[in-house]
Amino acid sequence: MRDLLIELDRDSPKSLQSQLREVLVSAILAGHLKPTDKLPSTRHLSRQLRISRNTSVLVYQGLVEDGYLRTSQRSGYYVNETVLEMGVHRSARSIDEALEAPTETIDWAARMKKFPGGQANISKPKDWRKLPFPFIYGQPDQKLFPITDWRDCVYKSMSKQWLDAWTQDTQNDDDQMLVEQIRTRILPRRGILVGEDQILVTLGAQQSLYTAASLLVDSHTRVALENPGYPDARNIFALRTDRITPQPVDRDGLIVGENLRDIDILYTTPSHQLPTNVTMSPQRRRALLERSREEDFLIIEDDYELETNYVGEPLPALKSSDRDGRVIYVGSFSKTLFPGLRLGFVVADAPLIAEMRALRRLMVRHPPMNNQRSTAFFLSLGHYDVFVRRLHRTYHQRWKTMGEALAKHLPQATVSRGQGGSSYWVELPEGSTAPADQIAKAALAEGILIEPGKVYFTGPCGEYSFRLGFSSIEDDVIETGIERLAHVIAQHSVN
Amino acid sequence: MRDLLIELDRDSPKSLQSQLREVLVSAILAGHLKPTDKLPSTRHLSRQLRISRNTSVLVYQGLVEDGYLRTSQRSGYYVNETVLEMGVHRSARSIDEALEAPTETIDWAARMKKFPGGQANISKPKDWRKLPFPFIYGQPDQKLFPITDWRDCVYKSMSKQWLDAWTQDTQNDDDQMLVEQIRTRILPRRGILVGEDQILVTLGAQQSLYTAASLLVDSHTRVALENPGYPDARNIFALRTDRITPQPVDRDGLIVGENLRDIDILYTTPSHQLPTNVTMSPQRRRALLERSREEDFLIIEDDYELETNYVGEPLPALKSSDRDGRVIYVGSFSKTLFPGLRLGFVVADAPLIAEMRALRRLMVRHPPMNNQRSTAFFLSLGHYDVFVRRLHRTYHQRWKTMGEALAKHLPQATVSRGQGGSSYWVELPEGSTAPADQIAKAALAEGILIEPGKVYFTGPCGEYSFRLGFSSIEDDVIETGIERLAHVIAQHSVN
Repeated sequence: MRDLLIELDRDSPKSLQSQLREVLVSAILAGHLKPTDKLPSTRHLSRQLRISRNTSVLVYQGLVEDGYLRTSQRSGYYVNETVLEMGVHRSARSIDEALEAPTETIDWAARMKKFPGGQANISKPKDWRKLPFPFIYGQPDQKLFPITDWRDCVYKSMSKQWLDAWTQDTQNDDDQMLVEQIRTRILPRRGILVGEDQILVTLGAQQSLYTAASLLVDSHTRVALENPGYPDARNIFALRTDRITPQPVDRDGLIVGENLRDIDILYTTPSHQLPTNVTMSPQRRRALLERSREEDFLIIEDDYELETNYVGEPLPALKSSDRDGRVIYVGSFSKTLFPGLRLGFVVADAPLIAEMRALRRLMVRHPPMNNQRSTAFFLSLGHYDVFVRRLHRTYHQRWKTMGEALAKHLPQATVSRGQGGSSYWVELPEGSTAPADQIAKAALAEGILIEPGKVYFTGPCGEYSFRLGFSSIEDDVIETGIERLAHVIAQHSVN
Repeated sequence: MRDLLIELDRDSPKSLQSQLREVLVSAILAGHLKPTDKLPSTRHLSRQLRISRNTSVLVYQGLVEDGYLRTSQRSGYYVNETVLEMGVHRSARSIDEALEAPTETIDWAARMKKFPGGQANISKPKDWRKLPFPFIYGQPDQKLFPITDWRDCVYKSMSKQWLDAWTQDTQNDDDQMLVEQIRTRILPRRGILVGEDQILVTLGAQQSLYTAASLLVDSHTRVALENPGYPDARNIFALRTDRITPQPVDRDGLIVGENLRDIDILYTTPSHQLPTNVTMSPQRRRALLERSREEDFLIIEDDYELETNYVGEPLPALKSSDRDGRVIYVGSFSKTLFPGLRLGFVVADAPLIAEMRALRRLMVRHPPMNNQRSTAFFLSLGHYDVFVRRLHRTYHQRWKTMGEALAKHLPQATVSRGQGGSSYWVELPEGSTAPADQIAKAALAEGILIEPGKVYFTGPCGEYSFRLGFSSIEDDVIETGIERLAHVIAQHSVN
């Protein structure tokens, strides 16, 4: 016991009780406290660590209950000798020392059939929360999250009565309560009315896309993608086919022109084009649906920010006008609830959903049932709607502030926007001498985080564009941030 | 309001308060309660529904706080007219009525490149908990789960201080606390000592296998699988290659014979062979590792029940003797924590883990961060070890009871067992006139659930074998269950 150094961190978010328990459990399991070792008295420990006697007593008692310690009448607490009875912590490498030979190394590159690690993708600095002007995209504003309501729903879902619902391996099935909420509460807002057999819960839009691509794309499949567009979608398809054709976008969204010929699948983001944020006009939508019939291609509609429209009536999803099942609709809770939860859903024809479900079984079985049930409660008790309204008000305000600040401080830049979303897409003014990644670097030195746009483009373009997210920046610093950014941009341009 | 029918179910596990809130929120969002509609007074509602006044008041107040209702001085509660301000619940199909044409249907079979839905797989009846003798495999015994400790960890992980850890989209990264616990607490027990860059957290063993197969297998890859073996593994590989060779198993595990030639990857379950439960002997392990070097193949070691060994010292994992990185180790929390959580991990050479991480990003980004953090607390506070010891004691007892009951009531059957696990594998006695699926059907009629073995075999064999799980059956009904099963079997055999 004498060399067991216990240090408690009073600035840590962990309680002193948790910290003390953790240290003691670790010491016991790692063998630093040996079976039958006597522990210091609670009085002694409390004095030594400057913690309340109560804390030591509670930790010791918890460890006795759990079998780590035992008490011996009047003489105090001892490490329980049965605690390591399962013969844990063997030293490794005992099977066969004869196998110990000069280590060969595996040539992994030669064994692998795919190299997703080499793909270009969005990256974000880990410590972005410390920046004064985080124009980051896709990260939640913690201050808006109704943590009490969420905790309440999590707690409800963990009750004994529901144990069955969240502890079981359901193999194929989703939480019925969640599916029903998606079907009757979320989808009708996007104009989509479907049956249960047309809905699959997924680990976010990411898994919806990956699963659809796994079933529908091989090396012969011709895929059309918006350009600029979502890099993760491009990356998913690029693992399977080289036959990818980028499709240009203008202020009305994806251009439905002669180029949408001879394709099998189109991936599109009509509500808020990713990354330019423009909203596809009703005329374009109509033309797109007509074209998809004529050319007999499928449409994957990624409605990733499905509840952020600030201008007028939101347009219903393409899927709501789908007559023959061509549209595979992808929705997500990442932008409303929180992205760390990884929950989304896909809506498509029943035969496709059935195969997606079977494939999901092989991939991950199903999204965790505890999270499905907590989310179902959050929806059914109306907390989701309250939260979405709050997000909506806050984002709407930031969206206006952003728009005004951009018009004021960067009037020469081209700013595109649609009916909503949580970001702006900006093209540097004429006369800029540095590409956006260089501007981003210079801005970061001033505490301003922006996202260079190149990664969204297929081919060598987009070097002078960038994205400004506003889901995680306070309204009252937006203007200063844009002003300083304009200053950085001005330093990198002629006249 | 007059046609709002509120029925509360006093037998439901949902509280009356939750039920009432749910009904009211639904009625408001669905438009059955119109903006400015007046609600019945709390006094009236309480009397009508026979609930306490307090319940009505709390529900109404919660709805006022959340903006669903507003109060008008002295005159009561009204539906808040701003609650539907986002223009939700549009009627669908408004874009373009002209598109309304005779519905074509998509020939999905012609579009799909893979058909996982048609694969043979394990299936379990949904209502198995109602059966008196559920010899089901892989489902947890709820009574053993330390729900209070788990809730405590979930609650800890949801604290404001950790909001960052579980709400963010981390793109590639796992919870550092969980990775550290796996590295220092779980893996050393299996003899495995590795660095952080060799560990990836996954959505269960399923995702580990799927991801590895996606990277390492194409139509040219030759894969060897234990026969009988895990159907989901076979299904995963069969989506990618036809070159699958089944490998026989005996009482010492996978047979390392001449047939392990000319292969690229071997999938194996050394600790408890799935489904026969035999443990691979040290001699076999040595031979297998030597053969893998000679023939230059990779080994996927699925250690799915990593902490259930009842006989002697558990053998360390194959991975612990791996000198050159050939072994890809797959572990799971499904059999210890609970399968609905979907958490597991994979240990492999750093270059492979890096590509698996990149692919995981495309598939699902990462396992939900809230679950990663809760599990990290559960491990770090020592609850996991307490729970595993409890499971171990309970399963060990059931394993003995099962062994004795089988010897007593089914002495003619061939029962295979290794050093642990949570099931027995049984071959019907000589003279049986019905295959196991027929026995299973007859047994089910008597309330006895067994799993026919055919699905574990590649090719037309295994019709007279079955699996008996014991993770979810009480010790004191095991013998009666086996006795009755023996009776069913006797009814389907000659003499």
